[in-house]
Amino acid sequence: MKKLINDPKAVVDESLEGFGMAHPDLVSVHPDPLFVARAGGAVPGKVGLVSGGGSGHEPLHAGYVGLGMLDAAVPGAVFTSPTPDAIVPATQAADGGAGVVHIVKNYTGDVLNFETAGELCAAEGIDVRTVLVNDDVAVEDSLYTAGRRGVAGTVLVEKIAGAAAERGDSIDAVEAIATRVAANVRSMGLALAPCTVPHAGRPSFELAGDEIEIGIGIHGEPGRQRVGLEPADALTEALLSPIAEDLGVGEGEQVLLFVNGMGGTPLAELYIVYRRAAQLLAERGVAVRRSLVGNYITSLDMQGCSVTVLRLDDELLELWDAPVHTPALRWGA
Amino acid sequence: MKKLINDPKAVVDESLEGFGMAHPDLVSVHPDPLFVARAGGAVPGKVGLVSGGGSGHEPLHAGYVGLGMLDAAVPGAVFTSPTPDAIVPATQAADGGAGVVHIVKNYTGDVLNFETAGELCAAEGIDVRTVLVNDDVAVEDSLYTAGRRGVAGTVLVEKIAGAAAERGDSIDAVEAIATRVAANVRSMGLALAPCTVPHAGRPSFELAGDEIEIGIGIHGEPGRQRVGLEPADALTEALLSPIAEDLGVGEGEQVLLFVNGMGGTPLAELYIVYRRAAQLLAERGVAVRRSLVGNYITSLDMQGCSVTVLRLDDELLELWDAPVHTPALRWGA
Repeated sequence: MKKLINDPKAVVDESLEGFGMAHPDLVSVHPDPLFVARAGGAVPGKVGLVSGGGSGHEPLHAGYVGLGMLDAAVPGAVFTSPTPDAIVPATQAADGGAGVVHIVKNYTGDVLNFETAGELCAAEGIDVRTVLVNDDVAVEDSLYTAGRRGVAGTVLVEKIAGAAAERGDSIDAVEAIATRVAANVRSMGLALAPCTVPHAGRPSFELAGDEIEIGIGIHGEPGRQRVGLEPADALTEALLSPIAEDLGVGEGEQVLLFVNGMGGTPLAELYIVYRRAAQLLAERGVAVRRSLVGNYITSLDMQGCSVTVLRLDDELLELWDAPVHTPALRWGA
Repeated sequence: MKKLINDPKAVVDESLEGFGMAHPDLVSVHPDPLFVARAGGAVPGKVGLVSGGGSGHEPLHAGYVGLGMLDAAVPGAVFTSPTPDAIVPATQAADGGAGVVHIVKNYTGDVLNFETAGELCAAEGIDVRTVLVNDDVAVEDSLYTAGRRGVAGTVLVEKIAGAAAERGDSIDAVEAIATRVAANVRSMGLALAPCTVPHAGRPSFELAGDEIEIGIGIHGEPGRQRVGLEPADALTEALLSPIAEDLGVGEGEQVLLFVNGMGGTPLAELYIVYRRAAQLLAERGVAVRRSLVGNYITSLDMQGCSVTVLRLDDELLELWDAPVHTPALRWGA
């Protein structure tokens, strides 16, 4: 294992320390228990947005703390759910008096820990709502999941719900918007090569030299099938078709197309995937109105990508375009 | 070799086709000869900015075409200089009547081809100036270079000179600003693992399982030395010290600190490098006023990073902060 790290056990702490030093205008990093909050603290009267999960998916979630997106993020250890003792103070830090929405990727540990934390916060008088993201069409149930896994669609839920909260929507409205995004987004990913968890020091799974895992999870959980190396166009179709079928998107509809890198794959390859995915949507009569291409939810150094399609309506489009200023996503501000 | 590509010979064309489809509001991709220009064409009365070089360093340069940065980019084949027959029409497309500045990384092929293209454009009455970027302190002369190589500092030259052109500076002024940035920026990189050029199909160089190359070039050219695997803090110091010494930056000065990923290294590791680099600058009494952390000039799937320090003055800081709207760098717009 070769990584740019010091002590494998200190990776998350040291990385977030550097993250806080790089973005002091946007975030403050609270070391123990570990969470990241907006530099200015909670915005009075605004609905707070909190997300979190295991580390190793950077820039998710801490990279999305800031104007128009999250108020706090709770990073667990690598690929390990954060615990309620960190989720509670993060929720308190995000609470501006109008309630807090927890955006939770559907993994058993995350769901349980956010639920416990939500109950503790409710007992203190904070109105906490939970929106579950389970956009991965690859498999029902998985290593760490009952039901579908939550993957790249989470970034879109956080952006759009964040914009709704920023414009002053009530907690009912923010919860409804987040739920609507989660209901209209689907994803699927593939891996060319596994990732290596720092404290494990060896690849999270094995792939032969000419093998690809279709439907991979963001922790290297098994997907649908292993296939031989195929051209990018064929692989893209293997991701896009199940997404489009499951979402039921068709003629005359408008979508956001998001091609995400798993961490070790060059941007040039992601655009090759984007090209074919956009062509396939066009063949279905679907209009791509917005795009996102890059490393937004990763799996350490895994090589591969995921494709995400979000069905847009006019309001979701407007909220997507609204200003955002976070370390990893920024426009209009 | 496992990559998300179709025909290895079509990688650059197909990737840029996808790039154009993803960002139709920002860029237009001209297929033959291949160059990328602003979607709206040249801005009348504004100094044009053109850069280019071999592909494989995405998002550089095409990702920086747009408001407040480049007017056109000329991608060559992977790790291969673009030819004058593409640089000339790109320069024409960027010419709003106020002249065009070529920003050229110091590699022999790039320098020669931009020089030839510049002469051809001058013969047509375009006032073409050339600013050379040679910020890599690792080695004097290298595989493809006489003198120092141009690396990550190029991104900063393009951003700041682009802002000067956008505010309406004359060609003399834009050339002077670009030259000032180039004179005040220094970089050095390292590799943990090599990259694989698609049409070659094998790693560009060999590194043993516990070896690191300090001072690596962005095409895998040899650096200063190979060392055993060391903690990130020690490796960061091995990059930062030569930079700080060469730049002569010290007590009371202000800088921009840029930690760049080579393509295959997770963001979390880049922040660990940032942390130590910022600490080392603080120990020298240098104030880090701005940061940039991420994959901005890559080497395909190479694992590693580079550190760049730019000495700031008030004008450079103001131009850095000015609005920019390109596929890969965006704020304030």
